[in-house]
Amino acid sequence: MNFKSFPSLLTLSFSSLLLSACSTQGNVQTINETQPKNIIMVVADGMGPAYPTAFRYYHDDPSTPLVERTIFDQLLVGAASTYPASESGYISTSDASAAALASGVKKNNFFVTDSAASATALAAGVKTYNGAIGIDQQKQAQLTVLEWAKSLNKRTGIAVTSQIVHATPASYIAKNEKRGNYNAIADNYFDLKVDGKFKADVMLGGGTKYFIRDDRNLKDEFVAAGYQYINELSQLTTLDPNKPVLGLFADNALPSALDSKDKFRLKTLTQTAIKQLENDKGFFLLVEASQIDWGGHSNDIAYAMGEMNDLSATMVFLNNYVKQNPDTLVVLTADHNTGGFSIGAKGVYQWQPHFIQLLKKSPNKIAKLLAKNKISDQQISELLGFSISEEEILQFNVINLEQTLAASQQKLTVKQAENALVKRYYKAIKDIIDLRTNSGWTSGGHTGIDVPVYAVGQGKEQFYGFQDNIEIAEKLFKLMGKE
Amino acid sequence: MNFKSFPSLLTLSFSSLLLSACSTQGNVQTINETQPKNIIMVVADGMGPAYPTAFRYYHDDPSTPLVERTIFDQLLVGAASTYPASESGYISTSDASAAALASGVKKNNFFVTDSAASATALAAGVKTYNGAIGIDQQKQAQLTVLEWAKSLNKRTGIAVTSQIVHATPASYIAKNEKRGNYNAIADNYFDLKVDGKFKADVMLGGGTKYFIRDDRNLKDEFVAAGYQYINELSQLTTLDPNKPVLGLFADNALPSALDSKDKFRLKTLTQTAIKQLENDKGFFLLVEASQIDWGGHSNDIAYAMGEMNDLSATMVFLNNYVKQNPDTLVVLTADHNTGGFSIGAKGVYQWQPHFIQLLKKSPNKIAKLLAKNKISDQQISELLGFSISEEEILQFNVINLEQTLAASQQKLTVKQAENALVKRYYKAIKDIIDLRTNSGWTSGGHTGIDVPVYAVGQGKEQFYGFQDNIEIAEKLFKLMGKE
Ligand SMILES: [Zn+2]
Ligand SMILES: [Zn+2]
Repeated sequence: MNFKSFPSLLTLSFSSLLLSACSTQGNVQTINETQPKNIIMVVADGMGPAYPTAFRYYHDDPSTPLVERTIFDQLLVGAASTYPASESGYISTSDASAAALASGVKKNNFFVTDSAASATALAAGVKTYNGAIGIDQQKQAQLTVLEWAKSLNKRTGIAVTSQIVHATPASYIAKNEKRGNYNAIADNYFDLKVDGKFKADVMLGGGTKYFIRDDRNLKDEFVAAGYQYINELSQLTTLDPNKPVLGLFADNALPSALDSKDKFRLKTLTQTAIKQLENDKGFFLLVEASQIDWGGHSNDIAYAMGEMNDLSATMVFLNNYVKQNPDTLVVLTADHNTGGFSIGAKGVYQWQPHFIQLLKKSPNKIAKLLAKNKISDQQISELLGFSISEEEILQFNVINLEQTLAASQQKLTVKQAENALVKRYYKAIKDIIDLRTNSGWTSGGHTGIDVPVYAVGQGKEQFYGFQDNIEIAEKLFKLMGKE
Repeated sequence: MNFKSFPSLLTLSFSSLLLSACSTQGNVQTINETQPKNIIMVVADGMGPAYPTAFRYYHDDPSTPLVERTIFDQLLVGAASTYPASESGYISTSDASAAALASGVKKNNFFVTDSAASATALAAGVKTYNGAIGIDQQKQAQLTVLEWAKSLNKRTGIAVTSQIVHATPASYIAKNEKRGNYNAIADNYFDLKVDGKFKADVMLGGGTKYFIRDDRNLKDEFVAAGYQYINELSQLTTLDPNKPVLGLFADNALPSALDSKDKFRLKTLTQTAIKQLENDKGFFLLVEASQIDWGGHSNDIAYAMGEMNDLSATMVFLNNYVKQNPDTLVVLTADHNTGGFSIGAKGVYQWQPHFIQLLKKSPNKIAKLLAKNKISDQQISELLGFSISEEEILQFNVINLEQTLAASQQKLTVKQAENALVKRYYKAIKDIIDLRTNSGWTSGGHTGIDVPVYAVGQGKEQFYGFQDNIEIAEKLFKLMGKE
């Protein structure tokens, strides 16, 4: 190989980029000439590596012999560890942690993170304790990549499907010792400034109730400060591109993808956010596919695949955006895995996602419909999209009778009785789907497996191979010129 | 960036290499000048991504705040999908597949592979049915990378901790429609030739009983053909480097790492194999960490971590070997995941591998010791290395009484009774370890998650990002000049 074999200077510049990326770890070079103008950080909450694998098979065209590749396959560059701080300055009140601490073992967090600690790692590049929002173990506020971007006079934004004060977006903007302090976190969004400027020019997601409260109306304060406020997805097309925006489309989280009119609402939010953020100085946008995690917590693979489908469309859009705007960097990773989901279970060597494709409604929606209406055998099969056994139908009837009895004995209100019934139906439906698809689960919480890392655009080579989650923030800081 | 910023031609050549690797997929360029002289393919059977993550935490020094990186972290380059052929020319007799086929669903293997199909994919670059050794769905023999290396007059070898006729090594050498036909596969090792030459110059592992049989003594045939034969690990240092070698160190598989005198026996075999294989024309070596899979099948995390520890030492050795021999390529991947193992379970956000470190013997060995000797409470805790609760001790006593009764009722022989007791003690010990470590499992079989890919040395860039397992063979063929 010699100079002549290089087609052009453009190629050379590209290969030099790769040189810094693919060389041995911890040896990243100064990369001034490769700083992306725009950075889009995408966090897929709870998306351990089994989810994108499963999505490939869920997404597969069964009429072709080989399995089609997904956008995730196209963009994969590496993996990241997610463990939280090993010794916590702030002791979690959970029994498990307390017991571990009492036993005298040195490390009390034991390698499994929550979304707050990992989002703080991704946002600020520090290990902290589970539950911490934007602060370290000593409860000191930490500078985040979003704040740094704002200090560079870039536009900044968040686009998420949870309430916008949920752990992941909160960690980029707010500072709080406890993720559950949603009102205080919402206050932070207005009160905390970078060089006198609001931290986020664009905020799209759910959480109306934290911004319009009896004790404080942050929505009005934002509007008085020059923000546009919208509360319907249909208003996204009506925005003035030169004014900041607060868009809250649900009291808490947005409906799940499966239950939404717009099954690609994350993509819609992301598209709008970018349109609002584009400017000469560039932008930093945090996108969160918030609800993959919730599918995992519920051990509801249909829910999780619906969210993956929206994330996939979002990533296809972002990949195309980078083609049009090569000075943009997109990084996608997960904060942790959720549910211990496995593709196949119980010794059987198969996974059958086509049963998920057949569902006419989300499992939770089906449970609600069943609880509200009298059950007919046919109705259940119609909603599921596949036939179920007589034993399974019997099981629904048993649940109905047991809950009728329980409601009477426990003197439940109509609403309480209905909720209890929905919960049990939901579980029964998930069990049927797990059996048909042959899905496995080990937890209703998070697990510690490394998560995949995806990147496209300027600077993507920085993310090749293995890295810890705090290094993702460190690399983003460097790509924005911070030493 | 311009020409001047490149330090030297050497760097340029390196960056050009990266160019082909890091560029968009499916666009790999001709790479004649980068062909490695030696290729070492390492298969970690059953090592889905949770195992190397778990090994990092198992391996961690608890006295330091951050978690130390492992050799796996250093060498990670990407991931691979592992699904078998979607429609099988050969119908598996397993109930699940038969039922699926009967239901009329088009794809009957459903994305979860066995070791034979995936080893054939890794060896020959073809998707085939579960159980197939070196043949495709139409039962046609497929050329493997080991055979191609031999046709180039390279030396070739296998070094594994299973019987050497087990699915993974067999798929590189033998051709059989069913992985369980061990005798026929062993016959292949002698009878099948490449250009009149034996396929493997070095064969190290277990499986004596398949080579010294009543109906045929392949050991004698190999010796008559010029091979050295050894059957003790201590003889590995006595080999003539200029003669081929058959080394069989156990009737079937080698003992597990935890139960071996040499806890790094895979590393030892690998070192010897390389010494025997080194020559001017280069070599191809298949190394298999065969028993991670067996730890997974048994849902025995201590077993699996013991095997990971041996693999880790093997990879450290190979990484150093590449430093000394930069014309060598080492690729490591898994054939599939096993057990649905999760780091953390049941909603608790922790994983405590230090309990595994405390074990004085392997769980299986402890079960055998307990079954052979009268149980004392202290003895159990001593063997485990940590104290157990009164309920747990009671559980061992219950098992003992139940099995005594069962042995009497079922008129079991002493040996049968002991085996049944060992099995139940083993399960009880694993349950205790899972509880202490907070490990989760979903299966006694394989699961379909993508597996990690690691590479170091000349040509490693070919393996960056996502790939299907058949592409690993395709890339190795290309790196050995096959179009
Ligand atoms: Zn979560
Ligand atoms: Zn296996």
